[in-house]
Amino acid sequence: MKRVAVFTSGGDAPGMNACIRAVVRGGLHYGLEMFGIIRGYNGMIKGDIIPLNSQSVSNIVQRGGTILKSARSKEFMTPEGRKKGYDQLKAHGIDGLIAIGGNGTFTGAEIFFNEFQIPTVGAPGTIDNDLYGTDYTIGFDTAVNTALDAIDKIRDTADSHDRIFFIEVMGRDSGYIAMQSGISGGAESILIPEERQTVEDVVSVLKAGFDRKKSSSIVIVAEGDEEGHAAEVAEKIKATIDVPVDIRVTNLGHIQRGGSPTAYDRILSSRLGLGALEGLLNGQKNVMAGIVNDELIYTPFHDTITKKKLINSDLLRMASILR
Amino acid sequence: MKRVAVFTSGGDAPGMNACIRAVVRGGLHYGLEMFGIIRGYNGMIKGDIIPLNSQSVSNIVQRGGTILKSARSKEFMTPEGRKKGYDQLKAHGIDGLIAIGGNGTFTGAEIFFNEFQIPTVGAPGTIDNDLYGTDYTIGFDTAVNTALDAIDKIRDTADSHDRIFFIEVMGRDSGYIAMQSGISGGAESILIPEERQTVEDVVSVLKAGFDRKKSSSIVIVAEGDEEGHAAEVAEKIKATIDVPVDIRVTNLGHIQRGGSPTAYDRILSSRLGLGALEGLLNGQKNVMAGIVNDELIYTPFHDTITKKKLINSDLLRMASILR
Amino acid sequence: MKRVAVFTSGGDAPGMNACIRAVVRGGLHYGLEMFGIIRGYNGMIKGDIIPLNSQSVSNIVQRGGTILKSARSKEFMTPEGRKKGYDQLKAHGIDGLIAIGGNGTFTGAEIFFNEFQIPTVGAPGTIDNDLYGTDYTIGFDTAVNTALDAIDKIRDTADSHDRIFFIEVMGRDSGYIAMQSGISGGAESILIPEERQTVEDVVSVLKAGFDRKKSSSIVIVAEGDEEGHAAEVAEKIKATIDVPVDIRVTNLGHIQRGGSPTAYDRILSSRLGLGALEGLLNGQKNVMAGIVNDELIYTPFHDTITKKKLINSDLLRMASILR
Amino acid sequence: MKRVAVFTSGGDAPGMNACIRAVVRGGLHYGLEMFGIIRGYNGMIKGDIIPLNSQSVSNIVQRGGTILKSARSKEFMTPEGRKKGYDQLKAHGIDGLIAIGGNGTFTGAEIFFNEFQIPTVGAPGTIDNDLYGTDYTIGFDTAVNTALDAIDKIRDTADSHDRIFFIEVMGRDSGYIAMQSGISGGAESILIPEERQTVEDVVSVLKAGFDRKKSSSIVIVAEGDEEGHAAEVAEKIKATIDVPVDIRVTNLGHIQRGGSPTAYDRILSSRLGLGALEGLLNGQKNVMAGIVNDELIYTPFHDTITKKKLINSDLLRMASILR
Repeated sequence: MKRVAVFTSGGDAPGMNACIRAVVRGGLHYGLEMFGIIRGYNGMIKGDIIPLNSQSVSNIVQRGGTILKSARSKEFMTPEGRKKGYDQLKAHGIDGLIAIGGNGTFTGAEIFFNEFQIPTVGAPGTIDNDLYGTDYTIGFDTAVNTALDAIDKIRDTADSHDRIFFIEVMGRDSGYIAMQSGISGGAESILIPEERQTVEDVVSVLKAGFDRKKSSSIVIVAEGDEEGHAAEVAEKIKATIDVPVDIRVTNLGHIQRGGSPTAYDRILSSRLGLGALEGLLNGQKNVMAGIVNDELIYTPFHDTITKKKLINSDLLRMASILR
Repeated sequence: MKRVAVFTSGGDAPGMNACIRAVVRGGLHYGLEMFGIIRGYNGMIKGDIIPLNSQSVSNIVQRGGTILKSARSKEFMTPEGRKKGYDQLKAHGIDGLIAIGGNGTFTGAEIFFNEFQIPTVGAPGTIDNDLYGTDYTIGFDTAVNTALDAIDKIRDTADSHDRIFFIEVMGRDSGYIAMQSGISGGAESILIPEERQTVEDVVSVLKAGFDRKKSSSIVIVAEGDEEGHAAEVAEKIKATIDVPVDIRVTNLGHIQRGGSPTAYDRILSSRLGLGALEGLLNGQKNVMAGIVNDELIYTPFHDTITKKKLINSDLLRMASILR
Repeated sequence: MKRVAVFTSGGDAPGMNACIRAVVRGGLHYGLEMFGIIRGYNGMIKGDIIPLNSQSVSNIVQRGGTILKSARSKEFMTPEGRKKGYDQLKAHGIDGLIAIGGNGTFTGAEIFFNEFQIPTVGAPGTIDNDLYGTDYTIGFDTAVNTALDAIDKIRDTADSHDRIFFIEVMGRDSGYIAMQSGISGGAESILIPEERQTVEDVVSVLKAGFDRKKSSSIVIVAEGDEEGHAAEVAEKIKATIDVPVDIRVTNLGHIQRGGSPTAYDRILSSRLGLGALEGLLNGQKNVMAGIVNDELIYTPFHDTITKKKLINSDLLRMASILR
Repeated sequence: MKRVAVFTSGGDAPGMNACIRAVVRGGLHYGLEMFGIIRGYNGMIKGDIIPLNSQSVSNIVQRGGTILKSARSKEFMTPEGRKKGYDQLKAHGIDGLIAIGGNGTFTGAEIFFNEFQIPTVGAPGTIDNDLYGTDYTIGFDTAVNTALDAIDKIRDTADSHDRIFFIEVMGRDSGYIAMQSGISGGAESILIPEERQTVEDVVSVLKAGFDRKKSSSIVIVAEGDEEGHAAEVAEKIKATIDVPVDIRVTNLGHIQRGGSPTAYDRILSSRLGLGALEGLLNGQKNVMAGIVNDELIYTPFHDTITKKKLINSDLLRMASILR
């Protein structure tokens, strides 16, 4: 292997730049020529491929977003699109790929390998932490701390006005951000897709709080919760609860994707980037690099896509004791 | 004057605690007995009035929210409610009030004085900076920096994905937060209630950006803008613009009210609190303490309520040059 | 067991309050009466012991420092001191202790148990992460992020002025803070007590940077490095290096101990607090609760004191590739 | 005037990039060709001069440091050095300069104009806020907030351990950072060069605090205070005070120069940059743009260099009441 290209795909996540830096500097360390593909599979199809040296990735370890930009590509889902991508890679002499992204990205990479035999190793880049094969994903720790900072701020207002706040955080299929930001933010209740919690359950927790003279409460709702979005949950609660309360709803939204990555995310991203590159060099393909119990492992794309990562139920038990 | 009570009323704002501290320590310095009323006029009516000493306000200068809690009071809008409030103040021997709040608060204070001759001096506590008689209000600088921090984060994502983001910030009748967070965040367009900007204006700015190869843009919308909320504005733009763009909307919401106050807000709040207290001691009443051109001044409640604070149009001119 | 007291001892660490909250709410959940001892062993000797209920620990999960205060106690190192402490515990009916602190704290607890049979379970509270028996200690993640934030700021100046900065971080016997803040901050060189790195090594790294046109560099020095403090190391380098460079030194100092804990630290502290409490209830004594590979374990005080925690040498290898 | 160059000189300050952006986009708006000089007067002498367009200053409004780099130049203090600089400017066709820096920078610019008639307008770039002719300088608000954040963190530790902390902040000839960070941080005592405060004064304040049961105290020392650096002051206090206290010293150091600028600094920097550019276009020379009472004014370099900016003594009076 002589020329390796790295790209980011899917939603951006803080730490992607640290990961790119590790891939590039790692590759240069091992004597490879390194390239970057702009805007993921779209850029591959268009041949938007640039050489990267050590200075190209200077001073980016601390930056949010991705210097290689990201996009979702419909064209790459078609055989014609993938053929164009392959032709561009050939034209640039690329013989290996590092894909930083999530399941959609890895699905594409696997099909692409089956068709054209260019191997890809993935790094898990998504704030949702919903990928099987790694304890944590790139951007998750930063997203949780961003959500937590917002929860801390909102509690100031909740306390000052004796209010119940429903705060929606990201996580379409996964309650990880909700759970970790909720526990660390001292939330009274946390609604996540992984656990069935009814409106009645929430009401009984809130009432128990009133009985203990809690004057304000925070309920965290993961965007993918089956009881609906925070606004819907709040409406249901308002209709059910029989004490007068002042209820507000806020959706933290896109701030959760941005910002300078935390120390944890920068180190994780660096390890995953270097690990993916070294895996590729050692003949790995169709696998995602992950860190499990502080050890680097490689998990087949097939497993990261089909297997479900479980939430630590001990944390949920703890949350109910500490509130 | 021997016994003075301080209270916070209306929406909470970062710096209210620093202001309370200044009122209390200032009062003790001048030999007064100091009291705090919990939950604004509601607490006055219920007699929820507590003595405050120097230690009561220790270690609060850095805290968001208000240790005295805040509320809006319907009962105080009735003569019966105000009579109850007066009786409670008499029972506690209170002969002067410091009200930290906005126009609703000051309107109540003026009527109350006319009926019962207990003088009030106000301090401008609102993040919106919409009060005539002071260059800045308590909490405004913190709210702007909170909004700016969010804009910086969102720009990471906007840049990574070539998106246009519509970000709604607080300010029902005032574009101050929008203008200052928008200029400092490098927004391409800023929509505020004080200035008529049509959807066509925004579209032409966005198009000019495309022509200059800007791949992402930020539009800041004050919640009180006459073109509607950010989501509505975004819909209108989407329907008007004739190039394919990826548009997202986010509402920053309640995070703008909370958080530890900035240095500016702590100093401003301290000056306003001490200034209000010293004004009351010097015979002022029915006035709000303010800082204009770095000088302490007192403005009649009547003026703070009826006069409109103008936005610095030179800043708007600058914004259009710098984008 | 009916009455349990919790205390903090040794240097304070962000997350101690979250840990206290978990101990107290956990104890109440299991039907215990809970107490707090003020200022560690000193408070035990003086009988500075207060009852704690659920509200006592409200709104502290986000606060740095420790509401129970901390101190080092010389008197508790004497048999007379410990006897006084025992008498006070007896007087309050305390039959179990939770000690949040480091090795000094645990050494005292073990001797105390041998003399008076009051069992203690410990929680690892120190920013240095130098305790055997847990992957991370309370406050470590926050301290690393605080140091990282400072490094990011200093890099702005280093870049603008083409300077080499020597930055000293905490860690008397441990290079954990140096290593993690250094890697995440993109430092060119990291000096830690665990690894012998000579002045010549550092000079050769810096020179290699110059050759690659790096105009600024950051060197992180753990306070316990055997080459000396940052100022000494900088002097040695200045005397050795034969190119003209502008060298500056800064010691991050006590800011590393304070601040609101990160999400990670709040969750870790909560798990350790609840885990210590549940261990005590289940008959554990003379052990420290720790989290290893995401599992709660208990390690005898004897081991936490005598065994040396190793630094992950893979991270050091990575640092040398990525710089 | 057709071609204008901008440069940064002296110590870097957060907001310099926002100022550069305003100068460049302002110049382009008025039809000028814009250039940047790298490393201040040194770059001018070497001809390190690059063209700047609108995209050159994209995405820098939020960055600390200066993309044009900064340096102090000994060679420019000589007639030969300045002649070289002039020749380079001529070679590039530069007929006007914008200098972002402090008094050293402006002194050079004035001499340069007298010799070669190339006009310069200055913008006040220094965190110290020690320039006559503007209420605030670029970077001051950010530096104060950085110092404040550190003070807040240190107070966590001071409170937890009942300690007195001496914290040294920047400001060689000016107590502005000390005063504003000290007041907003709730410091018990603030030592600044502008006001004679003896060790005895500090001791009496600290003792009064003990009498009111304050268990911890913060003393802020400006680096230029005549009682010496924080470590010396602490030693003198330790030798004078007759109660047992635990005293610690920390010097905040270079973190005060870096970081993303606050909203205030970004707006101020933008106004000063655009104002300097518009002044130059309107025939101003040998003047510094400043904002006084929210109005743009121009002050002759001579005055900014020779006149002393006074500290607001009302703030000092307030500090002594509120502590």
